[in-house]
Amino acid sequence: MRVTIWNEFRHEKENDTVRSIYPRGIHGAIAEFLEQAGYAVQTRTLDDPEQGLDQETLQQTDVLIWWAHKAHAEVNDHAVERVKKRVLAGMGLIVLHSAHFSKIFRNLMGTTCDLKWREDGEKERIWVVQPSHPITRGLEEYFELPQEEMYGEHFDIPEPDHTLFISWFEGGEVFRSGCTYNRGKGKIFYFRPGHETYPTYYDKNVQTVICNAVEWAAAPSAVVPNYGNTEALEPILRLAKK
Amino acid sequence: MRVTIWNEFRHEKENDTVRSIYPRGIHGAIAEFLEQAGYAVQTRTLDDPEQGLDQETLQQTDVLIWWAHKAHAEVNDHAVERVKKRVLAGMGLIVLHSAHFSKIFRNLMGTTCDLKWREDGEKERIWVVQPSHPITRGLEEYFELPQEEMYGEHFDIPEPDHTLFISWFEGGEVFRSGCTYNRGKGKIFYFRPGHETYPTYYDKNVQTVICNAVEWAAAPSAVVPNYGNTEALEPILRLAKK
Amino acid sequence: MRVTIWNEFRHEKENDTVRSIYPRGIHGAIAEFLEQAGYAVQTRTLDDPEQGLDQETLQQTDVLIWWAHKAHAEVNDHAVERVKKRVLAGMGLIVLHSAHFSKIFRNLMGTTCDLKWREDGEKERIWVVQPSHPITRGLEEYFELPQEEMYGEHFDIPEPDHTLFISWFEGGEVFRSGCTYNRGKGKIFYFRPGHETYPTYYDKNVQTVICNAVEWAAAPSAVVPNYGNTEALEPILRLAKK
Amino acid sequence: MRVTIWNEFRHEKENDTVRSIYPRGIHGAIAEFLEQAGYAVQTRTLDDPEQGLDQETLQQTDVLIWWAHKAHAEVNDHAVERVKKRVLAGMGLIVLHSAHFSKIFRNLMGTTCDLKWREDGEKERIWVVQPSHPITRGLEEYFELPQEEMYGEHFDIPEPDHTLFISWFEGGEVFRSGCTYNRGKGKIFYFRPGHETYPTYYDKNVQTVICNAVEWAAAPSAVVPNYGNTEALEPILRLAKK
Repeated sequence: MRVTIWNEFRHEKENDTVRSIYPRGIHGAIAEFLEQAGYAVQTRTLDDPEQGLDQETLQQTDVLIWWAHKAHAEVNDHAVERVKKRVLAGMGLIVLHSAHFSKIFRNLMGTTCDLKWREDGEKERIWVVQPSHPITRGLEEYFELPQEEMYGEHFDIPEPDHTLFISWFEGGEVFRSGCTYNRGKGKIFYFRPGHETYPTYYDKNVQTVICNAVEWAAAPSAVVPNYGNTEALEPILRLAKK
Repeated sequence: MRVTIWNEFRHEKENDTVRSIYPRGIHGAIAEFLEQAGYAVQTRTLDDPEQGLDQETLQQTDVLIWWAHKAHAEVNDHAVERVKKRVLAGMGLIVLHSAHFSKIFRNLMGTTCDLKWREDGEKERIWVVQPSHPITRGLEEYFELPQEEMYGEHFDIPEPDHTLFISWFEGGEVFRSGCTYNRGKGKIFYFRPGHETYPTYYDKNVQTVICNAVEWAAAPSAVVPNYGNTEALEPILRLAKK
Repeated sequence: MRVTIWNEFRHEKENDTVRSIYPRGIHGAIAEFLEQAGYAVQTRTLDDPEQGLDQETLQQTDVLIWWAHKAHAEVNDHAVERVKKRVLAGMGLIVLHSAHFSKIFRNLMGTTCDLKWREDGEKERIWVVQPSHPITRGLEEYFELPQEEMYGEHFDIPEPDHTLFISWFEGGEVFRSGCTYNRGKGKIFYFRPGHETYPTYYDKNVQTVICNAVEWAAAPSAVVPNYGNTEALEPILRLAKK
Repeated sequence: MRVTIWNEFRHEKENDTVRSIYPRGIHGAIAEFLEQAGYAVQTRTLDDPEQGLDQETLQQTDVLIWWAHKAHAEVNDHAVERVKKRVLAGMGLIVLHSAHFSKIFRNLMGTTCDLKWREDGEKERIWVVQPSHPITRGLEEYFELPQEEMYGEHFDIPEPDHTLFISWFEGGEVFRSGCTYNRGKGKIFYFRPGHETYPTYYDKNVQTVICNAVEWAAAPSAVVPNYGNTEALEPILRLAKK
């Protein structure tokens, strides 16, 4: 299993607070705990050649993790198309936090993916609402993040195949924080937490969820459907042919 | 309730067989039974000004019906974007037959929407698998079309919110022929039958389904969510602010 | 459309606080706003002959509303079986608040329907998460109940066909407060609010939801599937018969 | 992982044809390929002490496979209740063929689970409609069974979490032949094929599906929700308490 972490990697370069939290980038922090969990990990960023989304990288990737926030518009449309093709062909995709507004996620969802938000350092409590799902393995019935950006409903997404987490926010909102989808032969998991000004990706529960999600999203099926014009499998006899 | 039927309207101009079946166009045939059912109907075609998809037309439309086949690529991307915005804002969308490959449907689904097909004049039997859904009202447990183009699985769509119909084809395939989705505040119904070389839109059961679907897709909700930066509804006291 | 409101009707007889809020019973309060909305309403209670669930009553009912709390075990198993049969045959069912633990709801869900609860007079804020659903028509993006009993996740139900509402509670929990299901030809809506010690059923938003739900749940389909041994619709020729 | 195969085991004792196909019982045939695939398997039958459904057996079982047909009514209600409790607590359940009418399946579904059927030795072609699901791994896009009993829609089940297979029958019917559900913390898979008079459980594709389903259904989550009366996690200050 090969995991690629793609990070916009701009806040960490431009903002001292963010850099002090993630000195090696958000991708670096995620790579660290995934490697410790035994996964083969590579990282790519927006300022890499071909924006880090060249065909070879994607072909070698079983699960792609995507973090982005302020530079969604800079991502090349052809690169987005390449990523989408790979997802539909079976590559898993984990979409983190503000990547709800990434081209790739909106493209795969077909909706605006809009939501409410507030940066006020408030408490988030994330409840498990589907305890039988493999992505929730190893968690208690809820976990807390002492300070996070708030995301609130209505979250303009298609109704998820499965809603795994619902967040309670101190300021009075709720949010569907963990959502699974199938698109083509690929599996997609949206996971809400991870604002760049908080050390969210060092949280053990957040790490557990991301590790579980990698495992869940990677599992490809060998079924390769055929499309297009096709021969009949049974005789077509009952009416005179045209 | 105002229904707009959008038809590519090319086969009917170019092909004698098709024109003999639908002398006033597929849109004309659909308009006729919808008008008889009491709906206010207007029709638009690809060769109309602004491809029939100008802002005013869309604003006046509660439910848009879409038939297209050979000219998907000619539909202007900005027009597709306008239609999508209206769907996400609450306009119903009924996607017929070969419009599975239209830009608007693929855009809203996020998948290739690919499938198997065969033109061999074979029998299709359409089974109701959700008898409690309003779109199935007035049907028997199945209905038949003596000759239709075959569409076969795998149909590369997101798992439907509800699968209403499954087709049996003489040549040995099956197909999810009636599928509902929500996208934003809009409702979408995909309905398989309707190849241009067969008189499918004169079939009473097909007409019943389309009338029911118009009724179902039109019902808008008055809930208008707010998105973006938002004030807290409850005091955020528990941790020192940043 | 004929609506029957079934109420356990015990708290109102035994407890002065509850009686002072609902002097004509919870069923009386619900009947009043449904009648004002133009529905034909009848009420039944646990202490009626045949527990108010005789065959004739059920046959005349298009939508059954069910409130119960402390006497679930007293409801006769044969009566439950009659109600279930009617739901599967197309009668709508609206399950309110503590009726999550009723025999009829558990029976239709197949799960324990267990949950967390706390009686502490706390604030509940109910968010709309599916603004395109007819049950949410006429609401703002959220509404509040100043004091309610808390119900918290995990709520042990099958994943709903559609999750319409999610509640935020002052004490830190969340809850899927509006859930739709299909069972057989019947539609089921679970709606959380309505503890007997608060005037919840006088709240205009709660009334809007219940009126909408009656409308949604009533719509029956005319499709009557046949079950059991059946003749072939096509010749079975390809292998020698047994 | 421990798999228990529960078989009614009556046809094999009473009918020469069936015995000649399954000399060691249907459970024996299933046990054989599961053991070869490396699973720890035990078998139980209706005529065992406590009908083979004693508490100890269930506690030792991660996935229970259930085949039954003519003696559903003989299964003890308390035994059914024990199985149901274990499923809701996380045991996987695989329901085969005519077990659609078993007490345990109807109990977990909440519907009649009725369907059409015909014993006419016709061909069944099973199409994969969700190629990304782990239960479909290792299959081609369809597989055939030369002779099977027909099961036809409408199948009176709740809409599945995921519909994996749809069958085409020579006689003109279709059927949702592979359906997944969650109930409580347990996973359920219904799989259609397996009439006792055909050697279906020796078919390699059928065996692949059952092996995959065991793997899928076994995966338990460690999340153990708490239910019942609960302390507030946040101060409830905003209104005077009752």
